[in-house]
Amino acid sequence: MAYQPPVREQLFLLREVLDIGQYGDLPGFADADDETVEQILQEAARFNAEVIAPLNSVGDKAGCVWRPDNTVTTPEGFKAAYRALVEGGWPALGADPAWGGQGLPAVVNLAVSEMASSANMAFSMYPGLTHGAYSAISVGGSPEQKALYLPRLASGQWGGTMNLTEPHCGTDLGLLRTRATPSPDGSYRITGQKIWISGGEHDLAENIVHLVLARIEGAPSGTRGISLFIVPKFIPNADGSLGARNSVVCAGLEEKMGIHGSATCVMVHEDAVGWLVGEENRGLAVMFVMMNEARLGVGLQGLAQGEAAYQAAAAFAKDRLQGRALTGPKNADGPADPILVHPDVRRMLLDSRAILEAGRAFLFWTALCGDLARRHPDEAGRQRAEDYMGLMTPVLKGYLTDRGFNICSEAMQVHGGSGFTEHFPVSQYLRDCRITLIYEGTNGVQALDLVGRKLAAHGGRAVTTFFAEIDAFIAAESDNDGLRPFAEALAGAKARLQDGTLWLMQNGLSNPDNAGAASTDYMHLFGLTGLTFMWALMAKAALARIIAGDADPFYANKLLVGRHFIERILPQAGAHLARLKAGSSTLMSFPAESF
Amino acid sequence: MAYQPPVREQLFLLREVLDIGQYGDLPGFADADDETVEQILQEAARFNAEVIAPLNSVGDKAGCVWRPDNTVTTPEGFKAAYRALVEGGWPALGADPAWGGQGLPAVVNLAVSEMASSANMAFSMYPGLTHGAYSAISVGGSPEQKALYLPRLASGQWGGTMNLTEPHCGTDLGLLRTRATPSPDGSYRITGQKIWISGGEHDLAENIVHLVLARIEGAPSGTRGISLFIVPKFIPNADGSLGARNSVVCAGLEEKMGIHGSATCVMVHEDAVGWLVGEENRGLAVMFVMMNEARLGVGLQGLAQGEAAYQAAAAFAKDRLQGRALTGPKNADGPADPILVHPDVRRMLLDSRAILEAGRAFLFWTALCGDLARRHPDEAGRQRAEDYMGLMTPVLKGYLTDRGFNICSEAMQVHGGSGFTEHFPVSQYLRDCRITLIYEGTNGVQALDLVGRKLAAHGGRAVTTFFAEIDAFIAAESDNDGLRPFAEALAGAKARLQDGTLWLMQNGLSNPDNAGAASTDYMHLFGLTGLTFMWALMAKAALARIIAGDADPFYANKLLVGRHFIERILPQAGAHLARLKAGSSTLMSFPAESF
Repeated sequence: MAYQPPVREQLFLLREVLDIGQYGDLPGFADADDETVEQILQEAARFNAEVIAPLNSVGDKAGCVWRPDNTVTTPEGFKAAYRALVEGGWPALGADPAWGGQGLPAVVNLAVSEMASSANMAFSMYPGLTHGAYSAISVGGSPEQKALYLPRLASGQWGGTMNLTEPHCGTDLGLLRTRATPSPDGSYRITGQKIWISGGEHDLAENIVHLVLARIEGAPSGTRGISLFIVPKFIPNADGSLGARNSVVCAGLEEKMGIHGSATCVMVHEDAVGWLVGEENRGLAVMFVMMNEARLGVGLQGLAQGEAAYQAAAAFAKDRLQGRALTGPKNADGPADPILVHPDVRRMLLDSRAILEAGRAFLFWTALCGDLARRHPDEAGRQRAEDYMGLMTPVLKGYLTDRGFNICSEAMQVHGGSGFTEHFPVSQYLRDCRITLIYEGTNGVQALDLVGRKLAAHGGRAVTTFFAEIDAFIAAESDNDGLRPFAEALAGAKARLQDGTLWLMQNGLSNPDNAGAASTDYMHLFGLTGLTFMWALMAKAALARIIAGDADPFYANKLLVGRHFIERILPQAGAHLARLKAGSSTLMSFPAESF
Repeated sequence: MAYQPPVREQLFLLREVLDIGQYGDLPGFADADDETVEQILQEAARFNAEVIAPLNSVGDKAGCVWRPDNTVTTPEGFKAAYRALVEGGWPALGADPAWGGQGLPAVVNLAVSEMASSANMAFSMYPGLTHGAYSAISVGGSPEQKALYLPRLASGQWGGTMNLTEPHCGTDLGLLRTRATPSPDGSYRITGQKIWISGGEHDLAENIVHLVLARIEGAPSGTRGISLFIVPKFIPNADGSLGARNSVVCAGLEEKMGIHGSATCVMVHEDAVGWLVGEENRGLAVMFVMMNEARLGVGLQGLAQGEAAYQAAAAFAKDRLQGRALTGPKNADGPADPILVHPDVRRMLLDSRAILEAGRAFLFWTALCGDLARRHPDEAGRQRAEDYMGLMTPVLKGYLTDRGFNICSEAMQVHGGSGFTEHFPVSQYLRDCRITLIYEGTNGVQALDLVGRKLAAHGGRAVTTFFAEIDAFIAAESDNDGLRPFAEALAGAKARLQDGTLWLMQNGLSNPDNAGAASTDYMHLFGLTGLTFMWALMAKAALARIIAGDADPFYANKLLVGRHFIERILPQAGAHLARLKAGSSTLMSFPAESF
């Protein structure tokens, strides 16, 4: 069975759990009434299932092809699909109406992005990175830069990239060597080699706008001397028409385990013409806008590959006849029972559902914070939403990609031997998903960002607010009998996370190695707690419908998956807390030369 | 850094932990004195590191090539390496001297197999499967079959395969349709299609001996009507010279995520000439001999890929300069510190070591049981060893492959973006390793074999003996102060496993779905307990050397890795126990149509 976008799940979250209708008087949300949102999601589902998803395996098998004239050809069908994407106006869905966008809330846009990523992760990266470039110029660009670039990036007419990594520097951008020399006309000449540049060269868009980190001659060393530049493939004229070919070229493609349809380029800048974005030496601040957006997007990719893999596994388990149920035949007239009769197969599938459904809720909840951070009418509301965005971004990136990869692996396991062959889609989901644990900052870097920066920001204001919100939710629902198992699970999860947070405060400040040693387990504990909160919110919404007499099995199923989460996913929290408290002394005392 | 066989670790296990010298008066062990074993392992290390390992990436990139004349060409270099393997006598190491083998203990042979599998898993499968065919004919073959086939399989002059799976039947062999028709000369004519046949066709050996499951016409349906046949590619004359080409051909190769150097064949038998092995309709019993041996070998493959991936990750972490230690620069004169300074990187590496070192011990310990089951002088000793072999085989297969795959994934994580590219070896280790969770019975099937068959055999005799052995060890070491943390950890692990075993007895017998729902967590809990026991045994051996004044850091490091195991791996046991006790009601009540 081909991928089916989970529109019903998404609408449940938008309407019944997050109730985005309550923000109808805010900009953007006014145009996102129930009916419009449903129409958009249905149309997006059709487009992604029928146009984009069929190219996923094609792209994996063919890959992108680099030629000695420095051009890159994307897999067959990508070009036509990209044209359809742009003509359908999909890239512009969440962009500012001032630049030709539709201005829909980010949370609605995220639902569409999920479908795109499940349908074809490699293909979806081209518009995904373009949107990142759009955001960076939105934040840091001059009015002229905005007017020239934003409408064309918003529509997808031009593509966008992030040029950060160099061979000797990935995580540690302070080491970067690409240099920028001022020209008399106010532009710069950029020289250096960048690697792992997604969408650095391709045949989909008429121009490609590279956002490049480089060091202006004489700038301080380290991260305080890095500036951000726009380096377009074709230098645009003021009216947007294309001028000369810039001297930034793709010198080759990376051979990778997955996302073969995404061109991962070595980019060589040789006196390429670039324009400074924002202030000199403040490039990282702008790039982090792009990166934070990208991190949320990568968390979504992890979830989206997991969802697609789950769907493939569930279909296989219903279809594959092999053996008999432990309790006697369930398909007595057939040669064997479907393997879905086996508890261990159901465990793998429900483990996946329990993470995917709450992971999606957590992503949507956080994306809504992103909307409210910009659009909430009062300052306190904006600050709270901004705090949450900052705190949850590394959690979602790290936790959901880790779990998404495991879900892909479980989905392969459900397939048995078939899963290891390339005739079934699950190997590609697994291979494509694996990069999400790595790029935009490895999950270890996310965990360090969480414990070293996000947690401590503003005296721990974000996490304190989060704990208070959970406490208030539990108190408010104390009479809700049906919700009791979820409220109790939430109280337990929150207590463990609070315990871990306290341990970090007491042990991580005095010895940063303790914070580093605890970081990954803390991130997972945080992710689990976030998911438990989401299950409580979803269970509350489902219970309300059941009590109101709604007989749709969707709601009863939701409670069952939630119960499964409590029984089988949440017990992991205790192990994370124990490991977190193990400290760093054993780790750090092992001799370096003995590794 | 290229793969370095862990000879020091292996010798520590053979000499100091298992003390195989104590069995010097048993057949096979007499020829395995300390000096001989060390020479064999050193020579094996050289051969595998220098001859076999360099072909690993070559094989991955080139793969095997099928041609329309039904031939299969292995990757460049495989043929010469196979010749060197046979000439070196490596396949015959563990075979019976009666058939030209060296008759070394299985536990010594396992050490060599580990190196072969780490060096090049795909290549090592050809002799691996051949040894399986050797074992099956050893057990079930007639004297004439043994004399004809065993010497040539033992040496590797001929290859061997297992022909089990058909398109509609993998796990559920009772469904198989390949049929055998008796011929007047006592042979049979075999007709049917088999899939996923490793080494079904290749250019390495002069003949290939297929062991084929088929149903003799008129045989009962289901598993009680399955017989085992020898179907050679070339029909041998009585003197072993090759006669006519048999009508069993490779109709194509499977496209797979990994092990590209291993030819995974579709085999078509069209009235192929075959000879019955053992009795009619009793083929599965013989095949299970082969399968159990293969399962232990697959557990080893999971560990071996993890070991190779760990080594690559450790080398990368020492080499890659990026960022600074949280506690201040450790490589102040360099542009950055090696990433090994980061606690989270060390966590990933030591998590891997903690599993790998004890996993290897558990495999060796079990392989020694295999030797003692055949060679122990008294019946009780043989029975005990046989019980352990049966009980531990599914645990080692399921647990070590699951963990081995995670170790490969962690090793990729240590590599950052480099790990996702095919320029570094870790992607191949991850992709190759993934099949180990699936073939020779998926890990879910292993878990069911454990809870449904092995645990209950002889009234639970094996597990009862295991618990008693652990109790006796703890009691005997009660005065060993240095060992106390390990003894306490072991007592805790054993208590949890006993608790889980009791739960299974109380809930799994009345409702088999409870056993199925608990099976995977039980298997992991068992694996963790086995590893805890191994850590106690290794710590005891290391402590004895330290107390005796041995200053080799090997022993102090061993204790540190063991402590890491207790602090950071063992906490997982509580989560497994909680999940195990969750029962099956939520799992089984979820409607099939809603998956």
